[in-house]
Amino acid sequence: MAESKPNRTTDESTSAVPKAVISRLSLYLRELQHLLRNDEETTNSARLGQLLGITDAQVRKDLAHFGQFGYPGIGYRCEELASRIKTILGTDREWPVALVGVGNLGQALLGYKGFNDQGFRISVAFDLAPSKVGSQIAGIPVFHLDRLPEIVSREKIQLAILAVPSDTAQSVADQLVAAGISGILNFAPVTITSSGDVAVVGVDLAIELEQLSFAVVKQADKN
Amino acid sequence: MAESKPNRTTDESTSAVPKAVISRLSLYLRELQHLLRNDEETTNSARLGQLLGITDAQVRKDLAHFGQFGYPGIGYRCEELASRIKTILGTDREWPVALVGVGNLGQALLGYKGFNDQGFRISVAFDLAPSKVGSQIAGIPVFHLDRLPEIVSREKIQLAILAVPSDTAQSVADQLVAAGISGILNFAPVTITSSGDVAVVGVDLAIELEQLSFAVVKQADKN
Repeated sequence: MAESKPNRTTDESTSAVPKAVISRLSLYLRELQHLLRNDEETTNSARLGQLLGITDAQVRKDLAHFGQFGYPGIGYRCEELASRIKTILGTDREWPVALVGVGNLGQALLGYKGFNDQGFRISVAFDLAPSKVGSQIAGIPVFHLDRLPEIVSREKIQLAILAVPSDTAQSVADQLVAAGISGILNFAPVTITSSGDVAVVGVDLAIELEQLSFAVVKQADKN
Repeated sequence: MAESKPNRTTDESTSAVPKAVISRLSLYLRELQHLLRNDEETTNSARLGQLLGITDAQVRKDLAHFGQFGYPGIGYRCEELASRIKTILGTDREWPVALVGVGNLGQALLGYKGFNDQGFRISVAFDLAPSKVGSQIAGIPVFHLDRLPEIVSREKIQLAILAVPSDTAQSVADQLVAAGISGILNFAPVTITSSGDVAVVGVDLAIELEQLSFAVVKQADKN
């Protein structure tokens, strides 16, 4: 049966840095990228906090996990802080990504511009359907799932996006692990487990809708 | 140009409860639902914390924002805590949801089982394409965008999912606001703003991939 339990990265429980802090690093990076597009050279913890709806103290505490970033009387230099956050997140390089499952969701993800903007390039896709295997979708070649180990190894792919139905998610994840993938982003609304060193992050889209219903209920209470 | 800046709910900055806490409420709820499916009647903050990779103190602090939930010597009663979290999140009721934009992503979302499981029912869809208007996709009728105000009002729809291209996201969001929608879940990788009391939550799928690359880099450093 499908279930909507969030997955956890395998090493999260032993991590010194809370997962929420890592999520906020992504948000800081987006704000810095936005500031840089507007030719802003510096910012500060109060401004970053305000933009994210948290205190300046929390911003400084989050960043202090990773070193010293600010300059007295200046704050943060946008370009430098963005660059250092990318190094921390591992997005200072380009990651080739494999997508498995070229249904509606898979096809939507193949065309999703937000991945490329942050250095993730879906370079190959896999499916079982004879109508899809051998074709190109959004310029990306679709291979039969049987060729996973060969192509993952040849293209040195470490990350995979899992966009298959819930009932096959675990078995395909096992194939990804066997093929040498290091990290899996799972879109199936089902918990998958991985052995050893393979990280799994689950996307539960209902959580975002719950954030929205909370905001709407709270707003209604206020009026 | 498309940009991947996260959106914020309109009232977040004035909220006493941090957004991260609301996100964790969703995760607690998933764990409680999982425990209930396994016929577990009680749990405690240490177990919930362990499952989420945070401390038991953080779990208690999160819940303390909303009242008193535990019982001495017992911990939490799963059914009661799940029910109370649903009330807080506003998912103790069923929300009819409108989906706008029936491209690949929209079609994937129409078939996404994770929404129904949490009380969100996509009841109508809207598009501009003559080939889609008037059809049913996954059993959901597709109407022309012109009929938005009439149908939103008739079906008493408060939440909308925006799955249109980046360059039309803001103008469609404006139409949603004008039609009386209270909350918008935006999948376009672009910042949209809303006036007044309308909440906007942005989904930035690259953030999840960044969490994954962080975990993979950290794991590689460890080995």
